[in-house]
Amino acid sequence: MILSALLTSVGINLGLCFLFFTLYSILRKQPGNLTVYAPRLVSERNLEQNTDFKLERLLPSAGWIKRAWEPSEEDLLDNSGLDGMVFVRIFTFSLKVFGIAAIIGVLILLPINFMGNQLIIDFSDLPNKSLDSFSISNIPNAMLRLWIHFCAAYVFTGAVCYLLYYEYKLISSRRIARFYSSEPQPQHFTILVRGIPASGAKSFSESVDDFFREYHPSTYLSHTVVHRTSRLQQLINDAEKLYRTLAHMETEGQTTEQRDDSVHLPGNRAHRLNKLEKRLEVLEVNMRKEQSSLFQKEVPAAFVSFKSRYGAAIALHIQQGVNPTEWVTEPAPEPEDVYWPFFSASYLKIWICKLVVFVTCTVITALFLIPVVVVQGLTHLEQLEYWFPFLKSVLTISFVSEVITGYLPSLILQLFLYFIPRIMKMLSSIQGYISMSDIVRSACNKVLWFTTWNIFFANVLSGSVLYQVNLLLEPKEVPRILALGVPGQASFFISYVVTTGWTSLSSELFQLVPLICNYVRRMFARKEGDDLAVTSFPYESEIPRVLFFGLLGITYFFLAPLILPFVLIYFCMGYLIFRNQLFNVYSPKYDTGGKFWPIVHNSTIFSLVLMHIIAVGLFGLKNLPLASSLMVPLPILTLLFNEYCRRRFLPIFKVYAAECLIKKDREEQNDPRMTEFLDKLVTAYQDPALRRSHYYRTGGDRPTSPLLQSDEI
Amino acid sequence: MILSALLTSVGINLGLCFLFFTLYSILRKQPGNLTVYAPRLVSERNLEQNTDFKLERLLPSAGWIKRAWEPSEEDLLDNSGLDGMVFVRIFTFSLKVFGIAAIIGVLILLPINFMGNQLIIDFSDLPNKSLDSFSISNIPNAMLRLWIHFCAAYVFTGAVCYLLYYEYKLISSRRIARFYSSEPQPQHFTILVRGIPASGAKSFSESVDDFFREYHPSTYLSHTVVHRTSRLQQLINDAEKLYRTLAHMETEGQTTEQRDDSVHLPGNRAHRLNKLEKRLEVLEVNMRKEQSSLFQKEVPAAFVSFKSRYGAAIALHIQQGVNPTEWVTEPAPEPEDVYWPFFSASYLKIWICKLVVFVTCTVITALFLIPVVVVQGLTHLEQLEYWFPFLKSVLTISFVSEVITGYLPSLILQLFLYFIPRIMKMLSSIQGYISMSDIVRSACNKVLWFTTWNIFFANVLSGSVLYQVNLLLEPKEVPRILALGVPGQASFFISYVVTTGWTSLSSELFQLVPLICNYVRRMFARKEGDDLAVTSFPYESEIPRVLFFGLLGITYFFLAPLILPFVLIYFCMGYLIFRNQLFNVYSPKYDTGGKFWPIVHNSTIFSLVLMHIIAVGLFGLKNLPLASSLMVPLPILTLLFNEYCRRRFLPIFKVYAAECLIKKDREEQNDPRMTEFLDKLVTAYQDPALRRSHYYRTGGDRPTSPLLQSDEI
Repeated sequence: MILSALLTSVGINLGLCFLFFTLYSILRKQPGNLTVYAPRLVSERNLEQNTDFKLERLLPSAGWIKRAWEPSEEDLLDNSGLDGMVFVRIFTFSLKVFGIAAIIGVLILLPINFMGNQLIIDFSDLPNKSLDSFSISNIPNAMLRLWIHFCAAYVFTGAVCYLLYYEYKLISSRRIARFYSSEPQPQHFTILVRGIPASGAKSFSESVDDFFREYHPSTYLSHTVVHRTSRLQQLINDAEKLYRTLAHMETEGQTTEQRDDSVHLPGNRAHRLNKLEKRLEVLEVNMRKEQSSLFQKEVPAAFVSFKSRYGAAIALHIQQGVNPTEWVTEPAPEPEDVYWPFFSASYLKIWICKLVVFVTCTVITALFLIPVVVVQGLTHLEQLEYWFPFLKSVLTISFVSEVITGYLPSLILQLFLYFIPRIMKMLSSIQGYISMSDIVRSACNKVLWFTTWNIFFANVLSGSVLYQVNLLLEPKEVPRILALGVPGQASFFISYVVTTGWTSLSSELFQLVPLICNYVRRMFARKEGDDLAVTSFPYESEIPRVLFFGLLGITYFFLAPLILPFVLIYFCMGYLIFRNQLFNVYSPKYDTGGKFWPIVHNSTIFSLVLMHIIAVGLFGLKNLPLASSLMVPLPILTLLFNEYCRRRFLPIFKVYAAECLIKKDREEQNDPRMTEFLDKLVTAYQDPALRRSHYYRTGGDRPTSPLLQSDEI
Repeated sequence: MILSALLTSVGINLGLCFLFFTLYSILRKQPGNLTVYAPRLVSERNLEQNTDFKLERLLPSAGWIKRAWEPSEEDLLDNSGLDGMVFVRIFTFSLKVFGIAAIIGVLILLPINFMGNQLIIDFSDLPNKSLDSFSISNIPNAMLRLWIHFCAAYVFTGAVCYLLYYEYKLISSRRIARFYSSEPQPQHFTILVRGIPASGAKSFSESVDDFFREYHPSTYLSHTVVHRTSRLQQLINDAEKLYRTLAHMETEGQTTEQRDDSVHLPGNRAHRLNKLEKRLEVLEVNMRKEQSSLFQKEVPAAFVSFKSRYGAAIALHIQQGVNPTEWVTEPAPEPEDVYWPFFSASYLKIWICKLVVFVTCTVITALFLIPVVVVQGLTHLEQLEYWFPFLKSVLTISFVSEVITGYLPSLILQLFLYFIPRIMKMLSSIQGYISMSDIVRSACNKVLWFTTWNIFFANVLSGSVLYQVNLLLEPKEVPRILALGVPGQASFFISYVVTTGWTSLSSELFQLVPLICNYVRRMFARKEGDDLAVTSFPYESEIPRVLFFGLLGITYFFLAPLILPFVLIYFCMGYLIFRNQLFNVYSPKYDTGGKFWPIVHNSTIFSLVLMHIIAVGLFGLKNLPLASSLMVPLPILTLLFNEYCRRRFLPIFKVYAAECLIKKDREEQNDPRMTEFLDKLVTAYQDPALRRSHYYRTGGDRPTSPLLQSDEI
């Protein structure tokens, strides 16, 4: 790829971004689009849809950027929880990292690379220079200038590690501060107990009660045994849908009545109504049957609540029963975060599912390489001409060839990748996690590995799948092979950042699919209005994407510093856009308390070590064996630093220390609101299928279906 | 090796065993040998050395066998703790396993192997038959009879797994029962706290006191901060030695005085006494200096004791400080079991030591292969003749060649192996363990891996070290390579069991080295008498040895069932001999509470899986691909069984459950002896260097050195 092709690509993408931003600033002012661009504001503040026409509405403005920039971190924390803050801190952290990288890379390494073995920079014929002129490949072997790259790697690693430490410390202190300042929360007072031993005479519920009254008499509060409710939940969902249709038809009928003053309903509708009511009756009978047999569907698991956080922690951390497979305790998730379908699966089923998920993940990762290899073929014009000879005449036009080499490959990849996070989340959900947040975290990890392997390694190694598996068996060859492959793909990844990176940001802002859906609904659908669903932030797809650009930036930092300005622009835009989205679009349903940060930390360490391994190989290839050997301590030191961080900070993200728990408990000892909280805690972990009526009553304006009123089974 | 050579070897070794047993039964009756053959009885019951001569003393008898056989498991438990019982249970477990194996192997597999492809057993020329005629190699390829071996592998694995489960369950229930029935023990009430944060004004001792008074007000009892005392300990040892010499010289001088009535000491002695006293004075000054500066040598670690076991468990299992690297808790060992030198090392030093130990272990394992390969060469007469041509004439004598092939190789190996446990224990001791029992357990594991790798794999693979490392990189080839190598070494390992196995047992019984030392001391040394040191059982060398014979038996079970009777004889003799030794010779200094059993369990599982892998390869080589494939699920099932056991039983060996702790605490709540125990607990974990005087006072008959009387620093 030559410089002018890259600049064309940059131009196109900057233009597209500007276009999207402009369109966004106009479209978001249209009242009809409020549910697309600010659903959160609509649902929270019940914004009125002001339909008066103003000219100002059609003019683009940059007000949204200001509004995204202004709020402080505290506002963000209040609005989107610690997870939202962690996500935005990925951007501030990356901006710092790539700020330093860009200073070193662009001001020092880039000129050195460009000079090659000359002593002055040669600007002649700049647009037609290959991008390789800006990368380390341009420096001849055994040149002493390479020691500058060597030093740069050490300095950069030191800086990144310092930033990582600072960030980990800050986020863990925020996590603890948030714990101290939080209202009492059910999950801090509750544990999940599994493996309740079956005893002939007693039910699980009685067993739990007896056990905890015996061994935790002073702190035990209450418990909720889990039931297998997936069938009941299904019936309730069906009934609800049916009931809504019925209610809708009836109101429509009434309005028709009022309008037409005709007493007879059309025969067709009467027949349909009749049929629906009969189906509802059948469902009702089934549900009663299911509810009455629920006591047989007790699962040997229960949420056990305690009067204090410390009491819950004691029960959580000490092995309860003599038999370690009985009375197994684990922390309870937030009540809204519990993934109930999990409890319906038997132990064996979960075990098999885990195996299936593992195999499926591997297969997806392996098979995905095929389209990637095809896509990669597209970057070489000769191959394209060979496969599609009829395109020959078109491909000779320089603009077309530039677009194809600069833009098309990553766009196709992008389309394929769109479905991966959904698939991974689905896989994670059948893997046996008890909470939605764990599922999302697990999916996040899966997508991250998938992305790294399939986009980075598949492009770099560019061989058959078999070849890559063989690589694992020759660890000594890895640095050499990477050093041979990675620099060659610099131009691909630079264009990847420019196209995929920037486009993904504008499409996140523009929300094309919801926008079209919204138009279609408004044009064709019956107005239901109150069905506005505010989604939670899709961490499982966004975090891996952002981290992957971090990986590219770090890996290519000293190989091809030209990538750094584009990465920096990506993170600048991302910072603004995601802050905007977090405030306006997404609403957190649960909070993991910053548990995403360890993923970010590990990924950054991985990127650093990958950079070091490539450096070891590269200095070897460049005939600088001393530099190659002196590079070896760097990954070791980095991993030691990681080990230290793992010990110093990771436990904070897993449990709260006795010190915190006791302090917090003592603070609230005499708080009168605690009695109220503990009363509520008793029913906090009831299966939603068993307290549907509650949902209906608070629903307010919706009519109550008689069959859904049972509060208890 | 031919059958007659094996029988010669068996004959020699049985003869030797019988000789040793006879000699033992005579020698142990001699009063002078009581300290060699029953030091434990001597020290415990203060047995009088009856020097009257009786004829019966010179006659061999089998009374010791009866006395070793008779005591029940409860007696053993009382005498040698749970560790002793676990050790003896290795033998009963192995007897059951190899009882079953011998029934299947000798009655079914052996005749089938011997028949080969014939239909009747051919007894002609039996003594000159190669041992291979009794192994699976004698069956031609693709023979349907091999399916009997296939079934035998499944049946045997099932039986072993059942026995493993039963044994694990029994030992863990014994462990819990022993906990319930035990007197209050300091280690159950105490934890070790490390990483006490330094604060400017307060000493570590004050910090600990404040922290635990704040967060564990109801259960905290006391604490003992650890000091760096290795220098003081060294000075005390020196002073003690010097003082003892002085005291000895003085008493000798007095007796000389009384005897000779001469008032003048010989000038030589007076000069020496003077010199010694001066050195003692210097030591005294140094010790005072050291003691007065001890407060500067506080280590940020302390033993913290609690009023109840449950209180200690709570502090142990919950992360105490907000910073996870501070207030790190771990279970305290028994006070006698603490390895004090450990605390003298800094964190960094321990870390470096760990690395050094790891490297050293690897190097020892790698370099040890060289003598093993040489030894292995000795089993092939041709090679021996090639290397030492002058032996040619001697080697043609059939008896000599039989001795060399049957006996010499394993004897030389044995000599080399004698020093390995000591080296491994020394390595473990600098690895950072806080208790002697942990050191022994770690050394036990090291020796086990060493033995398995160096004796089993080195003999089987019989190539250069490099070849074996390459093997690790081709996991697919492992079954084939093992199946090619293992059956060929059957005769070597059969003779190994007969020679090394049986000899090691008789030498354990006979205690040749201590016997000689005893004689030498009695003949030349000044009689000190009271220095009788009863050693604790050398688990680190005996457990790996016994387990290795188990590994051989299991691995060769279906390959060469001829090994089974000899293994069975080994375990029968071992059972009697080690019971005898445990009752008479060794005295436990500390008890791990059966923590050696998981090592035994894991080793047995490893042996089974190894057998399965060999079977997979062998059925492949024998042209039975179906049997080979159907063998694959067996190791997977075995590993799943192991995983289940790990979850079901392993936690019991690590901690005691809340249920146990609370029950035990409640039982003793109103016991008046508890006050006394808690008073003692306060000083239980004092560094022996700081309470030397205590040792002296209880020493009773020994004169007290004035400089060692300080009870506190």
